[in-house]
Amino acid sequence: MKQIVNVIKIGGNVIDNDAALAQFLSDFVALDGLKILVHGGGKLATRLAERLDIPVQMHDGRRITDAETLKIATMVYAGWINKTVVAKLQHLNCNAIGLSGTDANVIPAKRRSPVPIDFGFVGDIQSEDINFSFLNLLLQQQMCPVFCAITHDKQGNLLNSNADTIASSLAANLSSDYDTRLIFCFEKNGVLSNPDDDDSAIAEITRTTYAALKTDGVITAGMIPKIDNAFSAIDAGVNEVIIKHAKNLLNDFGTKIKNS
Amino acid sequence: MKQIVNVIKIGGNVIDNDAALAQFLSDFVALDGLKILVHGGGKLATRLAERLDIPVQMHDGRRITDAETLKIATMVYAGWINKTVVAKLQHLNCNAIGLSGTDANVIPAKRRSPVPIDFGFVGDIQSEDINFSFLNLLLQQQMCPVFCAITHDKQGNLLNSNADTIASSLAANLSSDYDTRLIFCFEKNGVLSNPDDDDSAIAEITRTTYAALKTDGVITAGMIPKIDNAFSAIDAGVNEVIIKHAKNLLNDFGTKIKNS
Repeated sequence: MKQIVNVIKIGGNVIDNDAALAQFLSDFVALDGLKILVHGGGKLATRLAERLDIPVQMHDGRRITDAETLKIATMVYAGWINKTVVAKLQHLNCNAIGLSGTDANVIPAKRRSPVPIDFGFVGDIQSEDINFSFLNLLLQQQMCPVFCAITHDKQGNLLNSNADTIASSLAANLSSDYDTRLIFCFEKNGVLSNPDDDDSAIAEITRTTYAALKTDGVITAGMIPKIDNAFSAIDAGVNEVIIKHAKNLLNDFGTKIKNS
Repeated sequence: MKQIVNVIKIGGNVIDNDAALAQFLSDFVALDGLKILVHGGGKLATRLAERLDIPVQMHDGRRITDAETLKIATMVYAGWINKTVVAKLQHLNCNAIGLSGTDANVIPAKRRSPVPIDFGFVGDIQSEDINFSFLNLLLQQQMCPVFCAITHDKQGNLLNSNADTIASSLAANLSSDYDTRLIFCFEKNGVLSNPDDDDSAIAEITRTTYAALKTDGVITAGMIPKIDNAFSAIDAGVNEVIIKHAKNLLNDFGTKIKNS
């Protein structure tokens, strides 16, 4: 029987709130099985850019990572947030190790083509490029890798990547050797059947029920990319994807996305 | 026969200069044996603090690390500098992994007593507290740990430590299992017999010649703490300490500090 690995993504709603982060990390440590934490950036990078008068450049609602923005992202994500989270986990006797994708070349990325739009230092990743042997070495030492969303192109350049994609790629990469569970924590209780009612989370979505929920208009446009992404992870071999509120890590609230 | 491990410390004179850093890293990769890099901070943290209007607080010429200063140090040292150096080493096919002392609890520290002077979030380290088994695991995988000078107190707090002390403590910790060489790179060619002549580096200093050099007034006050520190490392089991200019990493220029 394969060992269980939980790959858990947290975003700004947890990172930006000291009490929520403390509660989440305490729950995280209590979770059974091996685990990997992937964190987003929260608002700290935006606030730092504002204080330094570095303008946020957007294209069609997506941020452009120029050299100054990359420096801020690396300082905030790989520096302050990553090390703060690791120090707190170590205090909880969880043997955490903070990593970016350049460390041990664990997540090499490909810089996105500047044509038609140059998004700057942004890296796209493929789960098969992830350094499984190093990840496996850490997991077999009962260590807990903590990833920020900074990667590199192996040409000497750091890149900014998407934390959700890092989490799913890590889970996919591990899935041939481990029973992998991917948990996306966000600010809602799951996929809601009524977007105005946070108590209306759907317990389980399979491919069959997903089609019906879309047809019936229960699942609205905003959730579709997230659920499609969850099914992509399952296609890549991940056993189960769960979308839930960070405060519910240890209980059953949330939406399980399963093949069948 | 024990394997050789080189523990090399670089400071701001290398980090702040792109060309010097590129040359140093290329030489570093060419060095025989296992290796560990320890980097200081350079001027980037001071410049960032200035841009953010965070005052530098000093006591008797020593910097006080308050909460804001710690955040900047962690962002710059553990974030930008550490990951930039690792990405460049990975490009040179050196399997570097960037670490702070909190990662894998590799360098636990003790917060300095606030009495008589509160230096803030400053951590003092003991070589025997270093996590040898993790360091050894990385070295046996032919990996190259790259350390910044951020540590932690295992109580959830990050701490700012001295990079020279981290380098000597790592070397001392490894010395019972490895043939350790500690190299301090700085902005001079070594311990100079004439402080105005950078070509006057003394090739080798032993305990016997050190005493004579001090008596004769050849070694001036400024160098004494550095050399005393080198002999402390040797007392702790380090085989050889070398003080040299970063540009001379691969040649024999510099001053070897040896027991006899």
